[in-house]
Amino acid sequence: MNIMSSSSLLARAEAEVLRTFQLTNQHSLTGNFAQPILEEKTMRKLDRAFAPCLMAVVLLLAGTGFATTPPEGIIHDAEHYILEAQHGEKWATEDTELDERLAELRKKFGTPPNIIHIMWDDTALGEVGIPEIQAVRGFETPNMNRMAEEGINFMRMYTEPACTPTRAAFQTGRYAVRSGMHTVSFPVEYSGMDAEEVTIAEVLGQAGYATAFYGKWHLGDTEFSYAHNQGYDEAFFTPYNQVPSMWVKEAESANVITGLYPEMYATDKYDIDNSWQPRGSVWTLEGTKDGKTNEWGPPPKVTNYWDIETEAQKRTLAFIDKSVAANKPFFIAYQPILLSFIPDPRDPVKKTANKNGLAEGLVKIDAFVGKLYKHLEEKGIAENTLVMVMADNGPFIHYGPRGMVETLYSGGKGDFTEGGVRVPCLATWPGTIEPKQIVGDILHVSDLFTTFARIGGAMEFIPTERVIDGVDQTSLFLNGDGFSRRDYVMIYQGPNLAAGVKGRFKRDWKNATPGLSKNEFYDLYTDPRERTGEMIEQFHVKSMFNRQRQRHELWIEKYPNRPDATPGPALTGIENERPETRQIYTIPVDVEKLPFDPEEVSGQPLPFSTSDL
Amino acid sequence: MNIMSSSSLLARAEAEVLRTFQLTNQHSLTGNFAQPILEEKTMRKLDRAFAPCLMAVVLLLAGTGFATTPPEGIIHDAEHYILEAQHGEKWATEDTELDERLAELRKKFGTPPNIIHIMWDDTALGEVGIPEIQAVRGFETPNMNRMAEEGINFMRMYTEPACTPTRAAFQTGRYAVRSGMHTVSFPVEYSGMDAEEVTIAEVLGQAGYATAFYGKWHLGDTEFSYAHNQGYDEAFFTPYNQVPSMWVKEAESANVITGLYPEMYATDKYDIDNSWQPRGSVWTLEGTKDGKTNEWGPPPKVTNYWDIETEAQKRTLAFIDKSVAANKPFFIAYQPILLSFIPDPRDPVKKTANKNGLAEGLVKIDAFVGKLYKHLEEKGIAENTLVMVMADNGPFIHYGPRGMVETLYSGGKGDFTEGGVRVPCLATWPGTIEPKQIVGDILHVSDLFTTFARIGGAMEFIPTERVIDGVDQTSLFLNGDGFSRRDYVMIYQGPNLAAGVKGRFKRDWKNATPGLSKNEFYDLYTDPRERTGEMIEQFHVKSMFNRQRQRHELWIEKYPNRPDATPGPALTGIENERPETRQIYTIPVDVEKLPFDPEEVSGQPLPFSTSDL
Repeated sequence: MNIMSSSSLLARAEAEVLRTFQLTNQHSLTGNFAQPILEEKTMRKLDRAFAPCLMAVVLLLAGTGFATTPPEGIIHDAEHYILEAQHGEKWATEDTELDERLAELRKKFGTPPNIIHIMWDDTALGEVGIPEIQAVRGFETPNMNRMAEEGINFMRMYTEPACTPTRAAFQTGRYAVRSGMHTVSFPVEYSGMDAEEVTIAEVLGQAGYATAFYGKWHLGDTEFSYAHNQGYDEAFFTPYNQVPSMWVKEAESANVITGLYPEMYATDKYDIDNSWQPRGSVWTLEGTKDGKTNEWGPPPKVTNYWDIETEAQKRTLAFIDKSVAANKPFFIAYQPILLSFIPDPRDPVKKTANKNGLAEGLVKIDAFVGKLYKHLEEKGIAENTLVMVMADNGPFIHYGPRGMVETLYSGGKGDFTEGGVRVPCLATWPGTIEPKQIVGDILHVSDLFTTFARIGGAMEFIPTERVIDGVDQTSLFLNGDGFSRRDYVMIYQGPNLAAGVKGRFKRDWKNATPGLSKNEFYDLYTDPRERTGEMIEQFHVKSMFNRQRQRHELWIEKYPNRPDATPGPALTGIENERPETRQIYTIPVDVEKLPFDPEEVSGQPLPFSTSDL
Repeated sequence: MNIMSSSSLLARAEAEVLRTFQLTNQHSLTGNFAQPILEEKTMRKLDRAFAPCLMAVVLLLAGTGFATTPPEGIIHDAEHYILEAQHGEKWATEDTELDERLAELRKKFGTPPNIIHIMWDDTALGEVGIPEIQAVRGFETPNMNRMAEEGINFMRMYTEPACTPTRAAFQTGRYAVRSGMHTVSFPVEYSGMDAEEVTIAEVLGQAGYATAFYGKWHLGDTEFSYAHNQGYDEAFFTPYNQVPSMWVKEAESANVITGLYPEMYATDKYDIDNSWQPRGSVWTLEGTKDGKTNEWGPPPKVTNYWDIETEAQKRTLAFIDKSVAANKPFFIAYQPILLSFIPDPRDPVKKTANKNGLAEGLVKIDAFVGKLYKHLEEKGIAENTLVMVMADNGPFIHYGPRGMVETLYSGGKGDFTEGGVRVPCLATWPGTIEPKQIVGDILHVSDLFTTFARIGGAMEFIPTERVIDGVDQTSLFLNGDGFSRRDYVMIYQGPNLAAGVKGRFKRDWKNATPGLSKNEFYDLYTDPRERTGEMIEQFHVKSMFNRQRQRHELWIEKYPNRPDATPGPALTGIENERPETRQIYTIPVDVEKLPFDPEEVSGQPLPFSTSDL
């Protein structure tokens, strides 16, 4: 059965579900926004009149099987099928033509295209790729700006609102809520991205790609979540974010008391619990697929922290050389950790008039991007390499470092407003992506998973028993403005659905309260800063957003999310473990002396206990 | 005596004043921000210890004469001389080279260059000239965006915060506070720009330019303030803004009760004062220099309102033709009134996905800009014509029409924050202005007065007995980024100094209170949205801003401002006056029956009294 007829069936069945649901909108949608619509309480209410009929239809779609016709191949979010039902034929025609182009390229270059993806932190849309904006912000990124001249400047790339979730969505092609990686991790987490999640490295690796990850991983501190245990042939990565750089001696003015480096602090005679705070940190690990894990570099201090970046960049170029020598296509994910909270003490002269950490970091990333392009030219592979750069979420405006500011949108890191989830994003592929494109279509970071798989000839390795939110945007990349296969985004904050986007329209679910008030709708052309929610003017999209959410939650019922990052012991399996590394991640309490079982309390396996030391 | 030695003397004398003043900063600068620093009370305080010394120096500069050396030629604001003392020699060298280039151009084309300046309402920086921003706002202005490709995109053009003040500064080359035109006018004003103000039309006219004004004048309703009585050879203009368009029948949903068109409203039996509201309006006048004034068009209704624009554009092109035929250089100021509050009922189909008035209006202005360039090409004068487009102030976000929003800066029309006073601004001059320039230098709308005069060979006609704030920015236009002769702006709200700008730094004077709090400084690179005033981090510019203000106010002492727009009867001298025109601007009260003299009460000449009817 082909997807078209499957989706037609879906559309019909869905329409039936929704007709029934509409009658209950007032009740189900104005309650606690964090609850799925199909929550038990609602079902009980429905039971009185509609439940028998409703249940029949729900079961038809969400039960043991879609009658007899579940979607075949990749399962997308339900919203996707609404579009496919309308544009499937056009897409199929485009795909035939795209397949031909990709086949020709492969013939011309001998391998599928190389893919290099660079993603840094906390940058507002427009801060990179729009030199006019940089002119008023006091810095310049000429190399990345040139990407806009020579490729696509995506004006509507959505991410998740924070680091860990965006990185999870990038790796898995799924909204972070599906993998349980919806919340930013900090040392020590005792959890990580589940081993059963399938990363883009695993997908491309099966299609013959050499894969490498360098930089800020931020997807857990458990052994199973290490980057080289998640499909990367080579990995050099920080399990956490940049925050530990605030905790060293050189950063004392930041005035944080975490206890990570207790030698910094005077004794506090009232501090009698030695189990309360971690006593140190590991910054960087390295490993190879199915190989050993090692801690990299000397113990943490600020200068070493900055060495991580240098090393990540060096390895990126070396991995290119190695892959070219082996005549293998490669996929490199480089996620700079440059935006440290502490400036590099070895390089005190500012590079920008702006002078703040973000601008200084962007200029340094930009210098590497220039070097990278030169390297690709020198290796003769520039025309067979897709390069993408982007940020992972909006600026850290809430008590973050100075100089991170809103540009066109309101809010920043952590927020569901556009400022939290729309980032600069640029792509080049000389000869294949047309130069000088400004693309206004919606795309989502998860789309890169599917698009890279398509471009790399690896679609068959995408898992088909779970929802893959990422849609194939190859047509958008190769055909340009107006060719997106997505006009929607579901925006989560942690595990909660906070907003829905559909084209120019946006629905604030987070602040919805029962009744009339706070049922806020935004027209993002009219009110891009989401200042004044409109109810009267957008009555016509009210039910549409209700249905969008219902479809989305129906799919969650059928393909459940992992509730959280998967628990496990932290930072185990390090070959060159320092004595203090082992010690600092150990709870210094004899658990035998406790009247309760800590594992039962936390639901997590314990780290090493004192008895292991 | 040359200016250099004069300014050196000034700098020395000023330093002396400021050393003395510094001792009193704490007192003088934290008081009522609306008061000049040299106010009498402060002087009394100073009297105890410093006044004799201070007064000597003040008199030296601000008294009956600058010792024996006042500045010669154009008098700029005092801040200018601080820069000239540092860069005067470099500027002189540049000027010599610029003079040669202008002379060559004149030789090549036979006349000085034509100048066309277009200035519309209420648009945030970036809404025009940055297609990336338009991609997320749902509209396109391809012709004006092409100006950025073929000329300069000014990223830091400052205006006054509102319509009337910006237009006054443009016409006179002076901060609006100096001409008394600091406050937005509404019907009926009984006042206007003083006859003694010298407009750019008067300056260029004396140098042989044909001059014309079309569109929204908004500089008063008195006969002496009419555009053709202020130096324009031809004028077709609205004395007021667009607001009257809200008051006609078609706009009833706007729900305003002004009484301008009383036939619209039901009788209110409690309304017993016939003198309270005006009873009608005049929308458009036309006239020629030293000629008659006529009302244009049929009586106000929405369709006619939109005809104003069509007519203004038609006349703009016709004036070009006439000037070319007469082999005269021309200066045209076209100030569109397009952003009506009411859509054109004859053209109901939206031109933009955005759909709001601003976007729809910009697209219409853009279409005319395209037509204009084509016309200049056809007439063979494209390379001898400087074309500039800009907005008059930030977006009308405070209870204005929908779809006017902040972009990169906070605030809008009326505000002293950057969002109120920074506007899109583009200029082309093929062959003379280099293409594809993004210019980050500060310039101010008043600079156009001086720059146009310089380009037009009319510097000698600029008055030299008053302060001209506009500095000559010919070097910036012809040499590009980094060549501005201004790094400062004084931002007024009405008659009050609200903020000072110096390079990246900004001082909020409006919210200053005595003592520590609210003495807010901003670094516009770090905090472009002016969210978090810094005191500790910017201690080093505190005294500098104090001095900037002191210098500025010293100059006001010496060259006093007009307190307000000059009063006079409204809308007199109209040849084809309608009976109702005369009637509606007449106070329908027999003043002989009053126990007081209305002229004495208002300080203004009375409009016609009932006895004149």
